[in-house]
Amino acid sequence: MEKQKIAVLGPGSWGTALSQVLNDNGHEVRIWGNLADQIDEINQDHTNKRYFKDIVLDEKIKAYHDLSQALDGVDAVLFVVPTKVTRLVAQQVAAVLDHKVTVLHASKGLEPDSHKRLSLILEEEIPADKRSEIVVVSGPSHAEETIVRDITLITAASKDLETAKYVQTLFSNHYFRLYTNTDVVGVETAGALKNIIAVGAGALHGLGFGDNAKAAIITRGLAEITRLGVKLGANPLTYSGLSGVGDLIVTGTSIHSRNWRAGDALGRGEKLADIEANMGMVIEGISTTRAAYELAQELGVYMPITQAIYRVIYEDLDIKEAIHDIMNNEFKAENEWS
Amino acid sequence: MEKQKIAVLGPGSWGTALSQVLNDNGHEVRIWGNLADQIDEINQDHTNKRYFKDIVLDEKIKAYHDLSQALDGVDAVLFVVPTKVTRLVAQQVAAVLDHKVTVLHASKGLEPDSHKRLSLILEEEIPADKRSEIVVVSGPSHAEETIVRDITLITAASKDLETAKYVQTLFSNHYFRLYTNTDVVGVETAGALKNIIAVGAGALHGLGFGDNAKAAIITRGLAEITRLGVKLGANPLTYSGLSGVGDLIVTGTSIHSRNWRAGDALGRGEKLADIEANMGMVIEGISTTRAAYELAQELGVYMPITQAIYRVIYEDLDIKEAIHDIMNNEFKAENEWS
Repeated sequence: MEKQKIAVLGPGSWGTALSQVLNDNGHEVRIWGNLADQIDEINQDHTNKRYFKDIVLDEKIKAYHDLSQALDGVDAVLFVVPTKVTRLVAQQVAAVLDHKVTVLHASKGLEPDSHKRLSLILEEEIPADKRSEIVVVSGPSHAEETIVRDITLITAASKDLETAKYVQTLFSNHYFRLYTNTDVVGVETAGALKNIIAVGAGALHGLGFGDNAKAAIITRGLAEITRLGVKLGANPLTYSGLSGVGDLIVTGTSIHSRNWRAGDALGRGEKLADIEANMGMVIEGISTTRAAYELAQELGVYMPITQAIYRVIYEDLDIKEAIHDIMNNEFKAENEWS
Repeated sequence: MEKQKIAVLGPGSWGTALSQVLNDNGHEVRIWGNLADQIDEINQDHTNKRYFKDIVLDEKIKAYHDLSQALDGVDAVLFVVPTKVTRLVAQQVAAVLDHKVTVLHASKGLEPDSHKRLSLILEEEIPADKRSEIVVVSGPSHAEETIVRDITLITAASKDLETAKYVQTLFSNHYFRLYTNTDVVGVETAGALKNIIAVGAGALHGLGFGDNAKAAIITRGLAEITRLGVKLGANPLTYSGLSGVGDLIVTGTSIHSRNWRAGDALGRGEKLADIEANMGMVIEGISTTRAAYELAQELGVYMPITQAIYRVIYEDLDIKEAIHDIMNNEFKAENEWS
């Protein structure tokens, strides 16, 4: 593959780690962000200490505060900004982009209120003649491990397989490997909905349950997010892939996951408002629980674990009663997707 | 459900835990074993201290040394003996059974040499007029947690759904819940093959890799055991269920798993003979790796992780070279089942 020029929008931990992967592969990387101090730090000190205290980035990685400069002549644009600003940044990109690019994103979540997948937002905001089919990259990936070049495997999904393969080639090397998938709905919903299950697994831990119970909630949680995804048009097998099971293993069994920790606190009897105040940040799995609960109601999808977590968080249901209800539901077959 | 009489063959940790579940549900439980001391201990002291130091069993649970006494008038026979003696015990059962029973098993593994699934062995050895369709119970279940009535969810699989439902009802209660499945091939191969992946995940840990790499090997390992299972006639979705993903989470992320610990030692550079000598017992994932490797060769199934583990164990391939090979394989799509 020839050297590509790539704009990485969002100098967060994952955006920085992905920039280093691309730079390692010989591509020209331009990080764009809107905090002048951070941009200067990357350009002058070659660090991004807010996320990585001990990492020195390659001097070839440049950062930009001006979006049109960052986008000038690039082959691809990677969105890795917070979910809630994806639409705004896409509008800004559409306003200055003067040629056709490959558009990809590496964020997880659904748009607040609309519950829309992020690739839909990119499709809506960036005119079709200025972009490829959207590619979603998602999978089990602590940025802290990728930045030290530890082995990481993720998925590149696009409706257009050739565009997914382009992204696969762009990123893959001896420590970073991508697998293609054409099920964008499955990959995006898996990445967003897994946070609900991480909250649930954390809650069981906080209540003192063991490995059997935690494996059970992860597996049955996976079954119900699959059920919702299938209703939205996904392939159920996508959920056993890197963006589903893979990411769930990292998120649902790790004390390092914010969603897991929020669940743990719920399990120990803390109230949501206190948990959020203590963490000092929004817990994505909490808002995703509401979105999934509402979607499930709307589409008539059976999601007992999501419903239980929703009722504990928003309707003050006692968490032990919620578990009792789940254990006493009518008997089920394992593979019920409707 | 009326009170049933059930023979539990095998007073190991899981057989004892399942006996307690059945007794909790009001059924008459008869444990059969061939160590006179252990049988006496269960009957006189109501303990099974080899497995559970602090547990006192209900006095209603009786143990037998005589198989025909244990089987007299029972409704169901649960096999939970080591894989390598399943055929022998089935032959003994066939020799003394004088009426038709429901036959189920809760062991994981393949018969040595023949690589046959355990339900096939039971079908072969117990005449069809003396038994139901075989039911397999499998899932994420540390016996140590079930014996203290911690929440456990597992699968009951049978070609005959009604027989699976009977077993589901037999065991389910407020802490133990079963889901039915009709994919016996999938459930049995998932339970056996998952141990290969546990060895691999342990090896990555021993080598010092992080969560991304471990989630990756579990997910891509799942993809390749699914590929083998599909070739044997399984439904790929079974592997995302309790006997697949669920059990893999418990086995592949836990230092308590013997297979994981063996892999960890391999990763730290120990040799197989030393690992087995130190553990003082057979490591199932090691023999399953050979069985799966041979099956994959025979059936033409692509299993790069199994092959790598096989070559490290049996052909002295350097483990870092094995990882290098996997990372440099040709690019793949995520959902390739053939």
